[in-house]
Order: sequence, then structure tokens, then C-alpha cells
Amino acid sequence: MRLYDSAPSGNCYKVRLLLTQLGIAFERQEVDTRQRDGRDDVLGGKNPALRVPVLELDDGRHLAESNAILWYLAEDTQYVSDDPYERAKTLQWMFFEQYDHEPNVAVVRHRTMLGHLDDYPDSEQRRERGYAALTAMERQLDGHDYFVGDRYSIADVALYAYTHVAHEGGFDLDGYPAISGWLDRVAHQPGHITIDD
Amino acid sequence: MRLYDSAPSGNCYKVRLLLTQLGIAFERQEVDTRQRDGRDDVLGGKNPALRVPVLELDDGRHLAESNAILWYLAEDTQYVSDDPYERAKTLQWMFFEQYDHEPNVAVVRHRTMLGHLDDYPDSEQRRERGYAALTAMERQLDGHDYFVGDRYSIADVALYAYTHVAHEGGFDLDGYPAISGWLDRVAHQPGHITIDD
Repeated sequence: MRLYDSAPSGNCYKVRLLLTQLGIAFERQEVDTRQRDGRDDVLGGKNPALRVPVLELDDGRHLAESNAILWYLAEDTQYVSDDPYERAKTLQWMFFEQYDHEPNVAVVRHRTMLGHLDDYPDSEQRRERGYAALTAMERQLDGHDYFVGDRYSIADVALYAYTHVAHEGGFDLDGYPAISGWLDRVAHQPGHITIDD
Repeated sequence: MRLYDSAPSGNCYKVRLLLTQLGIAFERQEVDTRQRDGRDDVLGGKNPALRVPVLELDDGRHLAESNAILWYLAEDTQYVSDDPYERAKTLQWMFFEQYDHEPNVAVVRHRTMLGHLDDYPDSEQRRERGYAALTAMERQLDGHDYFVGDRYSIADVALYAYTHVAHEGGFDLDGYPAISGWLDRVAHQPGHITIDD
């Protein structure tokens, strides 16, 4: 398989992490996401939203949206439950991740890394909403080792990606002990790789 | 089943539509989403993100995130494929809907309906991004009757919800003939109900 990738992107890291834990070989093709024209050239026809990650399957078909890719890879493995309610809860947390967490925690981190945080009037609102997402996670993890069914799943992969680098956006996790414990448990899963691997 | 609901919300309408098409009886409990305190009282313990829709199952368990609820209801029915790639493509479009479409098309509509559109500095950017999402949809539907596998699925339910009322946010679909044809096909599916039903 080939992964259209961006090294610092948490969304891309999710896919690299799960592919590695599943023992699936893949090659990485780095896409310069700052070049809009380059994205059209490389991703046009592969992802209508022109974003990475995009996974190219062995038969040449493409899949986009990080959490949809995780689902494709994880179905019928230990990384997603076969119980209907737990499967839906897994998706609930993955949609939460893309709606409440990524647009806030990841965007603030991205702007911080580029030195542009103060150029955007909504950065403080995104920081507040990022903390609200972290608070929702903290409540769920208080008394639970993982997000769904008390075992590691793609819901954890999805939420780990940008939470474990939230400090790069200036988020302080000192007041979130349940999240801190969970980050440590996820990092010690078999086959774990870091975002820099 | 009981649906914690908001009548004008497209996210809630998705769930009402699919429940009706599946012939599942449900009662609606309207939640005043403008009252943050009321949301905490009603939704605390049911959805960590404190948003509707929330579906209460017959056994008292709860599910949140509209598209996760659709998946729960649709698995093993005609409304989601049993082919692994088509299942992931269905989720790809549903994540696209929550990330690229809803925060733009739905938010502009909501602000317009409340008369507050010009109060937000990012309304024009959201309108541009809403049109970009519609353009991605138009490309996919050019030559396809539906989003996945050329048959009606929960990907269509998810994207129909806010697209068919986009004009209430001032979006002009005249330049989107493939979307217009698709809207008509979706509205003529067996068991279809409107957002006002």
C-alpha cells in the first residue's frame, strides 16, 4: 500500500500507527500540504477534499479521511469491537475527534508551529473549544482505561494522534490526570511507533 | 427508542429520516439547544459533547454523533454496503460531511436563520468553504446517482440533511446540476420524510 502522507500531521500519523500495529507494509509519499497547487496535482482524483492522508490500496483504489481509513484497516481485527453498540461508540468518539477536537487542538498546534497563532482572530476561541474537548475526554477516561469497551481500539488511535502533541500548541494537560494515564497506556501498546518514527 | 432532538437541526433530521425508513418507532424529546444550562441538565451523562441528537436505546443506553447513530441503525440493512471498501467509502463521505460540509453550510444557515450572519467575522470564509464542499460533492455525483456504490445509503442521508436546506443559508445551487438531480432522487426514496414532518 502507498500512503500519501505528511510527517507532522496527526491525521496521517494515525494511519501509520495502525498500519504498523497490523504489520502491513506501506510506502510513504510526502505531500507538501502548504502548496495548494501541488495538492491538486497529487491528490486530484484520489480525494475530493484534497487532503492527506490518502491510502492507495494494492489494487490502485483510494481511501481518504483518516478515521474512515482506520475503520477499513481495523474491521475484523482486535482494534474494533464486533459488538454493534461498541462499534457505534467507537465511531461516536471518532466523529467527536473530527468535529470537536481536531479543528481546535490540531489547528492551534499547527498555527503555533508555523508562528502564526496570533494572526487569526479565532485562535483563542479554538483554544477554549480545544480545552472543552479535552474535558469531555477526561470525564470519559475517569474510571476507564480506554474509550470503548475498556480495551485499546481505533477510537484511542484517533484521539491519541493530536492529544499527545497538544503541548506543541500550548495546551497544558496538568489538570487532566486521566488523559495523562491513558496517553501512557496507549504509548505502551504492542507495535507502537511515535509520530517521528 | 427516544430521540433527544431539535426540529430545525439537520443532524437530528438525519436520524429521524433513517428511523422512519427503517420502520422503527421512536418518540421525540425536543431540546432547546440555545440554553447551555438546559443542555447540561438534559444531555449530561448522555453525550460528553452536550449536543443533539442523542438516541436512547430501548435498554436505556445512549448513542451520540448523528453519523455514528446512522451507522448503528444501518449495519446489516440495505442502507450500508457489506463490501469492506464501500463501507469505508461510506464513512469517508460521512467524515467529509462533518468536517468540510456541516461546519460551513450548516453554520452559515444557522446564523442566517437567527439573523446573526454578519456578526461573525468568519461567515464569508465559511461560505467559501461551504461552496468548496458542494463542489467536491458535485464532482462525485457527476456520473453517479448516489455517493457510494450507486445506490442510496447513509452517506446520502448524511449529506442530504444540510444540502437540501442550503438555500436557507443563502447558498445558490443553480451551478450544481448533479447535486440538484441527486437531491430529487433522495427525496423520492421509499419512506422519505421532510425535515418539517
